[in-house]
Amino acid sequence: MHYDAARLSKLIATRRPGYSLPAPFYLSDAVFHADLELIFGRHWIFIGVEPEAPEPGDYFTVELGPASIIAVRGEDMRMRAFHNVCRHRGSRLLAPGRGDVGNIVCPYHQWTYNLEGNLAHNEHMGEHFDRCAHGLRAVHLESLAGLLFICLADTPPVGFAEMRALMEPYLLPHDLARCKVAHQVDIVEAANWKLTMENNRECYHCRANHPQLTVPLHEFGFGHQPGADNQAKLDAFSELLASEHARWQQAALPCNEIEQLQAVTGFRTIRLPLAGAGESHTLDTKAASRKLLGEFSNARLGGLSFWTQPNSWHHFMSDHIVSFSVVPLDARSTLVRTRWLVHQDAVAGIDYDLERLTAVWQATNMQDKALVERANEGIGSPAYQPGPFSPYTEGLVEKFCTWYLARLATGLGNEVQ
Amino acid sequence: MHYDAARLSKLIATRRPGYSLPAPFYLSDAVFHADLELIFGRHWIFIGVEPEAPEPGDYFTVELGPASIIAVRGEDMRMRAFHNVCRHRGSRLLAPGRGDVGNIVCPYHQWTYNLEGNLAHNEHMGEHFDRCAHGLRAVHLESLAGLLFICLADTPPVGFAEMRALMEPYLLPHDLARCKVAHQVDIVEAANWKLTMENNRECYHCRANHPQLTVPLHEFGFGHQPGADNQAKLDAFSELLASEHARWQQAALPCNEIEQLQAVTGFRTIRLPLAGAGESHTLDTKAASRKLLGEFSNARLGGLSFWTQPNSWHHFMSDHIVSFSVVPLDARSTLVRTRWLVHQDAVAGIDYDLERLTAVWQATNMQDKALVERANEGIGSPAYQPGPFSPYTEGLVEKFCTWYLARLATGLGNEVQ
Amino acid sequence: MHYDAARLSKLIATRRPGYSLPAPFYLSDAVFHADLELIFGRHWIFIGVEPEAPEPGDYFTVELGPASIIAVRGEDMRMRAFHNVCRHRGSRLLAPGRGDVGNIVCPYHQWTYNLEGNLAHNEHMGEHFDRCAHGLRAVHLESLAGLLFICLADTPPVGFAEMRALMEPYLLPHDLARCKVAHQVDIVEAANWKLTMENNRECYHCRANHPQLTVPLHEFGFGHQPGADNQAKLDAFSELLASEHARWQQAALPCNEIEQLQAVTGFRTIRLPLAGAGESHTLDTKAASRKLLGEFSNARLGGLSFWTQPNSWHHFMSDHIVSFSVVPLDARSTLVRTRWLVHQDAVAGIDYDLERLTAVWQATNMQDKALVERANEGIGSPAYQPGPFSPYTEGLVEKFCTWYLARLATGLGNEVQ
Repeated sequence: MHYDAARLSKLIATRRPGYSLPAPFYLSDAVFHADLELIFGRHWIFIGVEPEAPEPGDYFTVELGPASIIAVRGEDMRMRAFHNVCRHRGSRLLAPGRGDVGNIVCPYHQWTYNLEGNLAHNEHMGEHFDRCAHGLRAVHLESLAGLLFICLADTPPVGFAEMRALMEPYLLPHDLARCKVAHQVDIVEAANWKLTMENNRECYHCRANHPQLTVPLHEFGFGHQPGADNQAKLDAFSELLASEHARWQQAALPCNEIEQLQAVTGFRTIRLPLAGAGESHTLDTKAASRKLLGEFSNARLGGLSFWTQPNSWHHFMSDHIVSFSVVPLDARSTLVRTRWLVHQDAVAGIDYDLERLTAVWQATNMQDKALVERANEGIGSPAYQPGPFSPYTEGLVEKFCTWYLARLATGLGNEVQ
Repeated sequence: MHYDAARLSKLIATRRPGYSLPAPFYLSDAVFHADLELIFGRHWIFIGVEPEAPEPGDYFTVELGPASIIAVRGEDMRMRAFHNVCRHRGSRLLAPGRGDVGNIVCPYHQWTYNLEGNLAHNEHMGEHFDRCAHGLRAVHLESLAGLLFICLADTPPVGFAEMRALMEPYLLPHDLARCKVAHQVDIVEAANWKLTMENNRECYHCRANHPQLTVPLHEFGFGHQPGADNQAKLDAFSELLASEHARWQQAALPCNEIEQLQAVTGFRTIRLPLAGAGESHTLDTKAASRKLLGEFSNARLGGLSFWTQPNSWHHFMSDHIVSFSVVPLDARSTLVRTRWLVHQDAVAGIDYDLERLTAVWQATNMQDKALVERANEGIGSPAYQPGPFSPYTEGLVEKFCTWYLARLATGLGNEVQ
Repeated sequence: MHYDAARLSKLIATRRPGYSLPAPFYLSDAVFHADLELIFGRHWIFIGVEPEAPEPGDYFTVELGPASIIAVRGEDMRMRAFHNVCRHRGSRLLAPGRGDVGNIVCPYHQWTYNLEGNLAHNEHMGEHFDRCAHGLRAVHLESLAGLLFICLADTPPVGFAEMRALMEPYLLPHDLARCKVAHQVDIVEAANWKLTMENNRECYHCRANHPQLTVPLHEFGFGHQPGADNQAKLDAFSELLASEHARWQQAALPCNEIEQLQAVTGFRTIRLPLAGAGESHTLDTKAASRKLLGEFSNARLGGLSFWTQPNSWHHFMSDHIVSFSVVPLDARSTLVRTRWLVHQDAVAGIDYDLERLTAVWQATNMQDKALVERANEGIGSPAYQPGPFSPYTEGLVEKFCTWYLARLATGLGNEVQ
């Protein structure tokens, strides 16, 4: 343990509600170690989607701070997760990335594990060596409509089953299981992971910074201070929302907001209309892929968004899905992995154009990277002091912060009692 | 606070007078944090010159450890300094460097501050939001004949007014306010900032290391062990000094040494003859700019030097000024910023040649960088032990060290009582 | 002191015999500081060979953590070692590397030391300055048949004389003193130095990872689990070993194993047959240099290996010698320096081809670098737990670990009592 529980508890107590966090939460290595252990070590962490490993033996790795986890599909088509560490002398088994294997063979001394993580073969250890006691260390893994979550703790927290029950009706119609990854991009942001998440939880910064994203996104979908000058627009958006929700519900597509951001396994969802043609996150607001997902025949389904604590967000549209995971690398650097998914039968160049499919979020990601890095620089100054969140546009940032602090406090409580 | 006051006080007590500092003063991160807080946080720090921001809205930033400060000229032509941190969620406002702005607008959510640091505009914060309580955090700023000093403390230390009173008669004739920056160079030295400063405070190393600087500088202007072999030369220099001082005083130019290096706001000055033609820090010792400064008509004014604790030195000549600031970036890296100033009406390529103007100090800076980096490497060895200063050539190094230790001890006293 | 002796003693107690070390031994900066002080600071450390500095004034430096040591040959042809730190203000004297000097002159203020380390000249220090009190800080140095060892402690540990007495009969016939360095390569491995050493102490990893090294090395020279499938091969190797040892002993070449790896000055040696032509570590197993070493006329002398605690190994053949030193740079990076030595009269391109001479170990070094770096990555995971050593192939790894822990514990005992 690289942090002092008592000191961290005191730090939590200094936080003023409705204000950004005190600087050490973004800067301190001790807080970072607590984040890894108490947040990322004890909650359901989104790591990727099933189509990243479609066939038996297909795997991808996730680097989470100093840990490395293998997600691999077994011969029985089940996804499993293991620590990427040999039980002999600790060598990393698979290099970071993705690929396919028959068995997982340690490059150092050829200890050989099968896709269920069992040690199947090794040499020179004597006739009485107990292979059963030296299998890979397993990590809990759950799939929610094709979205893969792991939990590093021995006993996962409550709430996954409830999230699954609530979310499957929203997600299953988009049939992620029959999608393929059309494109994936990794970005390393020179910022604490919480700044990446806070940035995701508001669109106050969108109008001035995201000229591409604000094409499909309605200005009023993410909060706005009402005033004489915009009341008519706000009313028009409310009407649009009501009529679109009615239309979608007739098509058996749930769309109402579910907001459980303060739950241990916290999440939020809502289906919102998109601007213009209203079909997709594209620069012309029309579908990027001609092959619609699932059984959809109407492209005008808006955007179903799904946000999870502490590290993901996803946008499900009629024609494609964009899915984001955030993993902390160290106190000041964070990996943002973005996947664009289309129907598994969609053909690049025919059914979709990769550049058109990815244009909005490729641009938006780079803009967000610059913003959170600049925020991290400013917070590093001794002159930084927490500032007030907007009551109209930063409510979800506040909910992220309060969830984070509550979960940290709970973790510390377990720690010190 | 990242240092232990009691431990640091003990470390101060281990220093042997007349010897280089114990290794932790150059190496330790804890000492570095104390340096930032107690030395750079509580004294007048030289950051630049007025001609770096001649017009309203012109600004430059100074990165001082993790802090970033904006120096900006207001509509009223006054220079002001602010922390470069938004009062909303802490974003850095202006990227490091220089430029000009109408207002200071945060790129994140467009909070907009005017040149006086007041929050003039922001959105979504509600009708009762108090903009007056969310202006930029101001930093004390003073100009001494165009040299800009800031103090990060709430209450600046004593002594600036006295320094100004004593120094203005020396500096004002060179009329820095009517100069322009002909060239500026930033060098990052991989060394603790105190090694950079110690190196500046002696010329024992000059003869073997600075073939360019020793062209205009007299060998005997910075101390020498007397002996049978050099007595005649030393005597000749004393005579030259006396006759030149007499000549300059007739021209109403003060030139006697003022040595207040142990004052809280410590400094030293003296005007010394230069070698050869005696006009400037150039490779032919003649003026580099035909347009002399202020009201000067005679180029042969030697070099007026001005050293301040803890972080600057300046050479004022008849035709140009060279001004150096030192800012610590971390325990082992230091920014040295050098500015060459000429008369604001001097035209490059006609009145002066940039390469000729900067040749001596461009070369000297790179030589000094190599020396202090090598010193830092050696001091990093566990075999390093403080060694004796020369009584003839390193007296000003000793005065830098004793000032530094005394100020640190005072700061710690305030801390622990 | 940057480590906590009580905490480190507790950590030592957690180690399970026969298993790889607990993670902090490979990762922690505190352990690294203890390694530098108690292991590398108090034992005989191999740094190079006499032919690296054949003439008076020839020197090479060794960077060992933050320390830098100069090994230099005097006018009297004796090798001496000094700390590479000026006694004035601590500057590093000689840049890392090798070269030749008349005196050792500090670049900063020209303090001048002769090859015996005495301060011979400096300026400006006054007439009463005591030069005798300001010589370079000496480091113990011993040569064992041309292999150079230093000890940084004031009082070196016991055992060097005994090692010399036992090893000279093995080494002297190869006449290293009349060799020259044909090639030298430095590799920085991104791994803790102990992983580099552990990797050297077993060949369990060889078959799958070293296609070049396993050409000359017999598969059975470094341990093997016996079984029905390989008993015949093991018996054949035993017979070969017996017959070759008999042949070499007739030629007055000692070849039996000496194993003193648990001694304070720990080492091991054995002469083993090589595969194929049996002459050398080459890809065709024949001698790489036509000019045999010493008085040898028969090239088929196998490989005499010499391993020392904590940081070297060497292979002496009839035609050339390969010598390896390992020096820790920081907790996670390590310098491996390899020297290939041939007879001093051998001519490149005529008597030997450099590429052929170095091919096996150039390839092997890069393969080992990849293995130990991957091991270091895996051990960095919180999921790492020490794993079991093979009783057949990793006995010498266990002996390295137990020597290391015993020496650390002894050092801590001296520390806390």
